[in-house]
Amino acid sequence: MRTRAAVALEAGKPLTIMEVNLDGPKAGEVLIEIKATGICHTDEFTRSGADPEGLFPSILGHEGAGIVIEVGEGVTTLKPGDHVIPLYTPECRECYSCRSGKTNLCTAIRGTQGQGLMPDGTTRFSMLDGTPIYHYMGCSTFANHTVMPEIALAKVRDDAPFDKICYIGCGVTTGIGAVINTAGVEIGSTAAVFGLGGIGLNVIQGLRMAGADMIIGVDLNDGKEEMARKFGMTHFINPSKVENVVAEIVKLTQRGDDAIGGVDYSFDATGNVKVMRDALECSHRGWGVSVIIGVAPAGAEISTRPFQLVTGRVWKGTAFGGAKGRSDVPKFVDWYMNGKIEIDSMITHKLTLDQINDGFDLMHEGKSIRAVVEF
Amino acid sequence: MRTRAAVALEAGKPLTIMEVNLDGPKAGEVLIEIKATGICHTDEFTRSGADPEGLFPSILGHEGAGIVIEVGEGVTTLKPGDHVIPLYTPECRECYSCRSGKTNLCTAIRGTQGQGLMPDGTTRFSMLDGTPIYHYMGCSTFANHTVMPEIALAKVRDDAPFDKICYIGCGVTTGIGAVINTAGVEIGSTAAVFGLGGIGLNVIQGLRMAGADMIIGVDLNDGKEEMARKFGMTHFINPSKVENVVAEIVKLTQRGDDAIGGVDYSFDATGNVKVMRDALECSHRGWGVSVIIGVAPAGAEISTRPFQLVTGRVWKGTAFGGAKGRSDVPKFVDWYMNGKIEIDSMITHKLTLDQINDGFDLMHEGKSIRAVVEF
Repeated sequence: MRTRAAVALEAGKPLTIMEVNLDGPKAGEVLIEIKATGICHTDEFTRSGADPEGLFPSILGHEGAGIVIEVGEGVTTLKPGDHVIPLYTPECRECYSCRSGKTNLCTAIRGTQGQGLMPDGTTRFSMLDGTPIYHYMGCSTFANHTVMPEIALAKVRDDAPFDKICYIGCGVTTGIGAVINTAGVEIGSTAAVFGLGGIGLNVIQGLRMAGADMIIGVDLNDGKEEMARKFGMTHFINPSKVENVVAEIVKLTQRGDDAIGGVDYSFDATGNVKVMRDALECSHRGWGVSVIIGVAPAGAEISTRPFQLVTGRVWKGTAFGGAKGRSDVPKFVDWYMNGKIEIDSMITHKLTLDQINDGFDLMHEGKSIRAVVEF
Repeated sequence: MRTRAAVALEAGKPLTIMEVNLDGPKAGEVLIEIKATGICHTDEFTRSGADPEGLFPSILGHEGAGIVIEVGEGVTTLKPGDHVIPLYTPECRECYSCRSGKTNLCTAIRGTQGQGLMPDGTTRFSMLDGTPIYHYMGCSTFANHTVMPEIALAKVRDDAPFDKICYIGCGVTTGIGAVINTAGVEIGSTAAVFGLGGIGLNVIQGLRMAGADMIIGVDLNDGKEEMARKFGMTHFINPSKVENVVAEIVKLTQRGDDAIGGVDYSFDATGNVKVMRDALECSHRGWGVSVIIGVAPAGAEISTRPFQLVTGRVWKGTAFGGAKGRSDVPKFVDWYMNGKIEIDSMITHKLTLDQINDGFDLMHEGKSIRAVVEF
């Protein structure tokens, strides 16, 4: 079949909207009609050429929602008409990592996914001249139709709006999951969130859900304060306006007989390795847990004095918020539908596929939290 | 009163055995007769001048065991004749950190202890000419008698031999505690231990107690292998004899359908920041926990790519093995007396106070695991 897609022909160039060929689903695969897709910083990381593992030509996009059109041989858990959210982190429930119960990082199709291929080592997309087009993060949601492995699709309820729940395919789950799965924040905790973009706001609403008492947001842009407060932020620090952001957070959190200060939990949603260090070091001696969410530039390294860890701080990271996609994503959709999770106000722009490059411009200009393409 | 002590008069010099003045215990303090004390690398770190916070003149030593001689006003939990182990990490059970239940890093007397003083801001030790002598880590066990706060003494059973249980005051608890308190190792785990000195051996026996399946020891000195195997090590790697120690550990741990490999838990007992990085990076994607035990040189920093954490590894540290001294140390002594913990073979040398400098020489020559001074 043919479908329309925004193709990344080469690094650093705008995406090109074009007709492409799409082969039907092979065994264990599913053909999806994408109804909506968010535009995430990770897409831009690859589009721009900053991603050393970026492949071209490819169809980017990994934050989608859609409907099953056709299932391949052996597919048992999905049928045409099912509503689904694509998962860049699959959940096979069979591999050593899935069975461990300790991680969401399923390894069933890791090798081929990283090479822009379906599990059989080929692509389903191609140019009209036959040139293969690589898949991206196993999803390629910047296309009206895509083919994905069954294990990389979360079946969700039929009454949830695609243009909102697509955001659960990455940003919402990453931010909230970092709080509830990776950090395990308890009621009454104090927390700091570095970077108040789409991920940071979701970390903040995750902290509110988890019952945190003090939620300190940190961003260089004062314009982020108002929105973050709506999501639950209780204190705001612009690091360019204080001498030392770590000292400031420590001071804010010295309460009662706790002369030491520091937050119980901190989150980096910037991707800046210096900020990651601040996030660790502003956490509380003895038990502070700092979670890295942001993706750092190629080759960048985090560092600190080991004394920071020896005195009880814990440095962790999270991918897809530690969520097991097929098990957890439907739950997140329920939470959205029940009003536990707020998404609507974060979808600041709606675009058509033809306008997709405007979405990247809005991101660069800091004007959007999330721009969503609707098909 | 007067007592005999090994005094560190200045950085980098051998200790001087001399008579010193010792004031009696003030309110909340206890006078102890030290019966035995281990010589630890941390004492050497300070003696040598490498410790930027080292104070002189001081009486070093923090790994002791002894008997209560006299208690100061208000002391309720100890009485003359009680057997005790000094705690460089006190447990007041009242401060914000103790009450958190999340850490062993009691802050009750942290400020004065770091300045070489008793909680009232003075020293009990002085030269015969009246010059104050600083306390060390709140313990100063390189003296026949010392004064310590009640909250920094663990009361232990009377039938345990001082010359063995003194080692529980630091090395044994640090190593075993890192496994059971900080890492929380489960039955069937795989683990790597970097550095097979006194701490490393105790990590190994902790792993054996916790039921680890595979215990990989790493040391540049082949001579460490035999002893480590006696404590439970199942595999040995000399990193100077392999191309890449991380790759070697990953290869060793690829088992069954786990193509990824890596240990579930790793421990650095070297204090070398490059080794700390290897320890992190040889741990398993998705859930590997790496614990820093060693004390790094002043100013040294650990580093890694944040991707290591984002893909599920956890970097932590431990001080005194996460043990709450007054609560946990008596339990460790019971475990030794019940045969659960092995100590005797690690006490390789017995010295008199007059021979204490020989103990540092033995440490440098790699001839001792633990040298113990008996009074």
